[in-house]
Amino acid sequence: MRVVAIFSGGMDSTTMLYQLLAEGHEVKAIGFDYGQRHAVELKAAKAIAARSQVAYETVDLQSLGPIIAGQSSQVNPNVEVPDGHYSEDSMKATVVPNRNMIMLAVAVAHAISIDYDAICYGAHAGDHTIYPDCRAEFVEAMKTSIGLCDWKKITLLTPFVDISKADIAAIGGRISVPFEMTWSCYKGGTTHCGTCGTCVERREAFELAGILDPTGYSASTS
Amino acid sequence: MRVVAIFSGGMDSTTMLYQLLAEGHEVKAIGFDYGQRHAVELKAAKAIAARSQVAYETVDLQSLGPIIAGQSSQVNPNVEVPDGHYSEDSMKATVVPNRNMIMLAVAVAHAISIDYDAICYGAHAGDHTIYPDCRAEFVEAMKTSIGLCDWKKITLLTPFVDISKADIAAIGGRISVPFEMTWSCYKGGTTHCGTCGTCVERREAFELAGILDPTGYSASTS
Repeated sequence: MRVVAIFSGGMDSTTMLYQLLAEGHEVKAIGFDYGQRHAVELKAAKAIAARSQVAYETVDLQSLGPIIAGQSSQVNPNVEVPDGHYSEDSMKATVVPNRNMIMLAVAVAHAISIDYDAICYGAHAGDHTIYPDCRAEFVEAMKTSIGLCDWKKITLLTPFVDISKADIAAIGGRISVPFEMTWSCYKGGTTHCGTCGTCVERREAFELAGILDPTGYSASTS
Repeated sequence: MRVVAIFSGGMDSTTMLYQLLAEGHEVKAIGFDYGQRHAVELKAAKAIAARSQVAYETVDLQSLGPIIAGQSSQVNPNVEVPDGHYSEDSMKATVVPNRNMIMLAVAVAHAISIDYDAICYGAHAGDHTIYPDCRAEFVEAMKTSIGLCDWKKITLLTPFVDISKADIAAIGGRISVPFEMTWSCYKGGTTHCGTCGTCVERREAFELAGILDPTGYSASTS
């Protein structure tokens, strides 16, 4: 298939990208700049796309920042990024209002525009407790919506929606994903903090998968 | 309710805005600049919002233009706007890839961000033959998707989805919508051309509703 991949440069979407390529799909990767605190992820996305020789484009949605910021720590500079385990309720501060629907909608528009067949995003089972727009029921509803939004049927692929981040790390290990190039931290620094929910989740995924974690964290223990 | 209204300055969304106000809702209106040929509509939107004392904001999505343009006459400057009756198949050239899902997604994000309850858009029954993202089945699927995208349930209102543009004109006539301020033409000029599908549809709606058409068209007959 010809697939537009929503690609953040994180370990999930990088594994997704490598898996799509391994399966023989023609892939166009797009990242989103929505004024996020952790925009450093886009540098990782660009570098990984170059390494894997995939066409890549950053979609500039910075103008949306103030419109969608709300009380999200990732877009509103006045809200602090919470530390702790990613499953804690406090992590809901990191939700960006309706972010995934916006990214999915733009990816679909681009797929129609360049005559591609499908789009793909890396929501996984561990996201569900914090991110409403990663839940399987949301994904199912979006599959229906996306299938009806144009005269041509566009398919939504979500290969990781029923598996954990540790499972994704294990898959990535098998297909030689360059995890050292991926970015997870939500704090917006130049090294992984090691203590925000996303860093904690990253560390745990590598550990559970029995994969060497190549990340240099600022805090050596979580 | 507190409602974010997707507002283009056309006769449908203006009637929708006036109806929402007449029903006593608290309304925030948003228009979208996606690099459309007929961006003049945004001036109409701004002026009508000022007249009706509704908070209004233009969402700047111009950067999306090249990403979603495809073969749409409304975003791709190399594709001509078709003349003729709006129900003709040739009018499909005016479809902007997945435009409505993008606008709905951003409107929902804004509603969550400012703690509103609902969003509203003016798709009507006459749109269905040309615009896939105005069909009732698309609207139903989006209602489900929107209801699941956040921890708080956001409602999608589509008051006109089962009625015609003539019915909308009749409603507008009853609640004193300033139709002379509204904009429909897709050609991108400073007066209504009178011959593009959107102008033809506008003329026909006023005629069928038995409402005086206040529009100065460049071409006096369709």
